[in-house]
Amino acid sequence: MTRNLAIRPLTPAAFVLFGDVLDIEGQPDKLINQGQCGRYHDRAHVDFGEGGRAGISLFDAQPRALPYTLTMMERHPDGSQAFIPMHTEPFLVIVAEDAGNRPDTPRAFLTNGAQGVNFHRNIWHGVLTPLAQPGRFAVIDRIGDTPNLQEYWFDTPWQVQHRI
Amino acid sequence: MTRNLAIRPLTPAAFVLFGDVLDIEGQPDKLINQGQCGRYHDRAHVDFGEGGRAGISLFDAQPRALPYTLTMMERHPDGSQAFIPMHTEPFLVIVAEDAGNRPDTPRAFLTNGAQGVNFHRNIWHGVLTPLAQPGRFAVIDRIGDTPNLQEYWFDTPWQVQHRI
Repeated sequence: MTRNLAIRPLTPAAFVLFGDVLDIEGQPDKLINQGQCGRYHDRAHVDFGEGGRAGISLFDAQPRALPYTLTMMERHPDGSQAFIPMHTEPFLVIVAEDAGNRPDTPRAFLTNGAQGVNFHRNIWHGVLTPLAQPGRFAVIDRIGDTPNLQEYWFDTPWQVQHRI
Repeated sequence: MTRNLAIRPLTPAAFVLFGDVLDIEGQPDKLINQGQCGRYHDRAHVDFGEGGRAGISLFDAQPRALPYTLTMMERHPDGSQAFIPMHTEPFLVIVAEDAGNRPDTPRAFLTNGAQGVNFHRNIWHGVLTPLAQPGRFAVIDRIGDTPNLQEYWFDTPWQVQHRI
């Protein structure tokens, strides 16, 4: 048995409880390089916690197919985690509010091919789910000595059915 | 009058004096997400200096055409700066060793479409130079109150002539 989950377009308003949408919508904060480059300045609420520091890692994830079965969500109690696609393929972003140390009903979003995301510290999210090759992302997250991981496995999985 | 500069492929060995090549060449440091994702862990030597912190910004740069005339290089004395392409288009990376507070002969590299770069603190580099649309990059650099910028304008510009 599964439960169905609809996919919605990723927007900053829909994502505000969970993190930051990283894109170049709207006007840049300043023009640099003799006017040839717009800088959208400091757009992620990064937080690497006590005893942690920022690091840049690369993830290479297997693309998933829809319908996608969501069996597990995770969260990082000690730090934020940003995913920057190194390509222009939309990817699936699944998040949930907390409901007593387990994820509430998840919300599934599809990026538009020009967006990254930054999950705020301790926000429930699904694992990285590209829908096409390449599954290559830069990840900016906490480097530290704590496990910094909680997982929650659903008794009844969620099924993410359709593209928008 | 200009001077010519040859473009070479970007490799970690050729770039070692200047920074880190951020890519997924070789084996990942660990497999995560039930084996479905490789993590290339903590691949950039980041350094955000005294009184600074890591931030994630987005840059939207005008693509340049070859031959490209290099008139100026810059460096950031207070922090490293990483450029993550949010696309698969090769871009030009120009760096130089220091020669008494000015750039020595520059070196020009072309990425392979799957590479980002992290310039180490205080390394001379050219401004962001994509060669095709989109000119969209995530930038991980120092957020702080210092100017953190030195520029050097060449009396005789360099001309970057050809693709490899």
